[in-house]
Amino acid sequence: MYSPKLESLFRRKGIEVGDVIKVTKGKKVYEGILMPRIKLGDRNCLVIKLPNGYNVGIRYEKGVKVQRIKKGKPIKFVPARARLRKRTGLPTVSILGAGGTIASRVEYRTGAVFPAFSPADLLLSFPELEEIANIKARRLFDLYSEDITPCHWQLIAKEVAKEVRKGVDGVVLMHGTDTMHYTSAALSFMLQSLPVPVVLVGAQRSSDRGSSDNLVNLVCATLSAGHSTLAEVMICMHGSMSDEFCYLHQGTKVRKLHTSRRDTFRSINVLPFAKVFYSDRKIEYLRKDFKVRDKKRKLKIDTRINPNVTLVYFHPGLKPEYVRSLAKFYDGIVIAGTGLGHVSTNPLKDRWAHSLLPALKELIGSGIPVVMAPQTLYGRLQMDVYEAGRLLNEIGVIGHGCDWLPEVALVKLMWVLGRTRKMERIKEEMLTNVAGEISSVSDPRAFLF
Amino acid sequence: MYSPKLESLFRRKGIEVGDVIKVTKGKKVYEGILMPRIKLGDRNCLVIKLPNGYNVGIRYEKGVKVQRIKKGKPIKFVPARARLRKRTGLPTVSILGAGGTIASRVEYRTGAVFPAFSPADLLLSFPELEEIANIKARRLFDLYSEDITPCHWQLIAKEVAKEVRKGVDGVVLMHGTDTMHYTSAALSFMLQSLPVPVVLVGAQRSSDRGSSDNLVNLVCATLSAGHSTLAEVMICMHGSMSDEFCYLHQGTKVRKLHTSRRDTFRSINVLPFAKVFYSDRKIEYLRKDFKVRDKKRKLKIDTRINPNVTLVYFHPGLKPEYVRSLAKFYDGIVIAGTGLGHVSTNPLKDRWAHSLLPALKELIGSGIPVVMAPQTLYGRLQMDVYEAGRLLNEIGVIGHGCDWLPEVALVKLMWVLGRTRKMERIKEEMLTNVAGEISSVSDPRAFLF
Repeated sequence: MYSPKLESLFRRKGIEVGDVIKVTKGKKVYEGILMPRIKLGDRNCLVIKLPNGYNVGIRYEKGVKVQRIKKGKPIKFVPARARLRKRTGLPTVSILGAGGTIASRVEYRTGAVFPAFSPADLLLSFPELEEIANIKARRLFDLYSEDITPCHWQLIAKEVAKEVRKGVDGVVLMHGTDTMHYTSAALSFMLQSLPVPVVLVGAQRSSDRGSSDNLVNLVCATLSAGHSTLAEVMICMHGSMSDEFCYLHQGTKVRKLHTSRRDTFRSINVLPFAKVFYSDRKIEYLRKDFKVRDKKRKLKIDTRINPNVTLVYFHPGLKPEYVRSLAKFYDGIVIAGTGLGHVSTNPLKDRWAHSLLPALKELIGSGIPVVMAPQTLYGRLQMDVYEAGRLLNEIGVIGHGCDWLPEVALVKLMWVLGRTRKMERIKEEMLTNVAGEISSVSDPRAFLF
Repeated sequence: MYSPKLESLFRRKGIEVGDVIKVTKGKKVYEGILMPRIKLGDRNCLVIKLPNGYNVGIRYEKGVKVQRIKKGKPIKFVPARARLRKRTGLPTVSILGAGGTIASRVEYRTGAVFPAFSPADLLLSFPELEEIANIKARRLFDLYSEDITPCHWQLIAKEVAKEVRKGVDGVVLMHGTDTMHYTSAALSFMLQSLPVPVVLVGAQRSSDRGSSDNLVNLVCATLSAGHSTLAEVMICMHGSMSDEFCYLHQGTKVRKLHTSRRDTFRSINVLPFAKVFYSDRKIEYLRKDFKVRDKKRKLKIDTRINPNVTLVYFHPGLKPEYVRSLAKFYDGIVIAGTGLGHVSTNPLKDRWAHSLLPALKELIGSGIPVVMAPQTLYGRLQMDVYEAGRLLNEIGVIGHGCDWLPEVALVKLMWVLGRTRKMERIKEEMLTNVAGEISSVSDPRAFLF
């Protein structure tokens, strides 16, 4: 529903959702289909689907003119047919919805996008799923993923655990792509000793666009959850520019690397676990180092987390006094350092130097762990090669020898601090591989794979 | 020179630089060649070259035992022969030294590393350079690149400009690799309308290791500076795992992407300008959109900079009150947002939400520009597709439509703030392409190239 002001404007002008309208705001003119208002946010904002398929929002305020150009047919919710029937011989897959571009279906005539979460809704949008598995579907919440917080990770982990304990053969989590790799890392730490696969999936293009990746990604994710032998937390997304296959990425070794491409998710420092072919419904394993599906394995869950951790990106000019001020806000710091794990350590005290060493020493001294991660993303920290690394190592910065991603080090530190504030135990737990976040060997084939 | 305490220990034990020694510190034992102390830093720290080629530093303190294992020959500085002679028909290239792994030569018997900066020193280490160009060499300073500050960028720009104005055919800058891409971005903004090439070069492996990349990189960089038609600021580094060729990357579109690989530097969103073949001394151009060498073009230099800018990495759990506190330290903020240019905008006020919108609005309201950049690195910001982007756009966050790297947006904002604090002018200058930092078209071939 739009705001009362807008609804009354629509009544006056005889405008209904689905009509083609023209909105003039200053010098800008927008023409497109008026969309229903279904999201959180400013209800005084007109949402219009442009001819290029994207929606724009235009705040209705003084000076904004709205005209009807063409009458459309009113948008109706398509009734969800009850098509569900349990098929024997097929695995059972739970699909949980956490929002994002994928978590919607489209009323094709007008292009209106609705959240789709009942099993019937999902199967209406993606009838192919029925051939792959018996689907149970449930909506947890509906958020863009940049709005997801560490509290949501806890909630998701608990809900996934519920499904796993009910004995399903796999879980699919539909999730926005922006922070999907943070959530997959969190679930990897929180849900250990998984008996079945947990597969995160999203879409880069919404379902009203011809190039939408939602069908291929969801089919491959459901196939992986129901049929793969991988009992791991994973991300399943497009593997190339075509619709041919998806990759199954390890939940702690993956990252969004492109703003808009469908094959944006990439494994870092390791190969993906597997390649999942859409048309053939075939899974090709690229690695052997994974837990194999075993329903007798008992899931362990530990969702304790301390969200008071941040990630500081080191750069020329970063101020020591600013780094020092972090103590007021955070219980732990991850630094994305340069090269093999460096920050400035130049001891001069003038505008030509900004050593972070004293500030970091103080943070650590006051019980705030400082963890290093590489801003290069690929590769392994080696904090014994150059002087800066050795000095950081000496004052207790944690990370030497690790090849974790900055985002993953951040999530891990939140999780470790959820259980202890003792520096020695933090250090020990951080440096112990829990969920593949520290690889013993980096695969050279994985660079820019 | 080591500290007086260590020097007296050496005298007592008859230890000289070059000897094989054994150092015992607690449970750890190090054995290797005692190196001369040539760097800034703790003079009470023993530097030992291990058999694997890496140097380690061990702080000499109570409980540390030092023994001589084997007498070595004393390390002497090899006298630099004056081999310089001007050859006709060859271009003149100025090589400036700013430090880093490449900026050194090795005394091969012991593996000791010395800074090498006189022309004679350089040609002694890399005699092949003489066949490529008449070399002028000069050392600016000798720093690891994580210690380089925006003040150093100004100094480097002025020194490069001096060389260019003397009429050389190209300039090579030897620089540490960790922050080389920050410096190349700064030089790209500070030095406009270049008549000749400016090529930054470094090494990932020091010259005492068999796999050192210093020779290939320096030869290719000198070749590019002296013979290429590209009048741009560029980075020249290994293009693959072999020694076959280097890439010439555009100074504003390049990034270190691996902690240790020699082909760590990668062009982002565009192809490299050219491929430079080491053995054949051949340059293959991959693009056409560059300024062509023209000695009559007049260099413009503007080194004004405001270093009070930082880069904030958005992540789940990032606290609005922390973002607000940045006003105390900085005059400008770059946010590495998720996806197409997002941060949390969820208006709820509880532990399930942490909208940054009010904090960013306040920063902008108080005259602190907020610039968006993609934490995905690849791709372009589109802040009109989703609600978060539109809301950020509306409050004046700068970046819609840009495909700049976070590091480059940071350097550009420092440079723009060096000349104005007027929000409208900042916005206009930020959104105007100055040095290729905003590409008009992203090349799909450039993803993971």
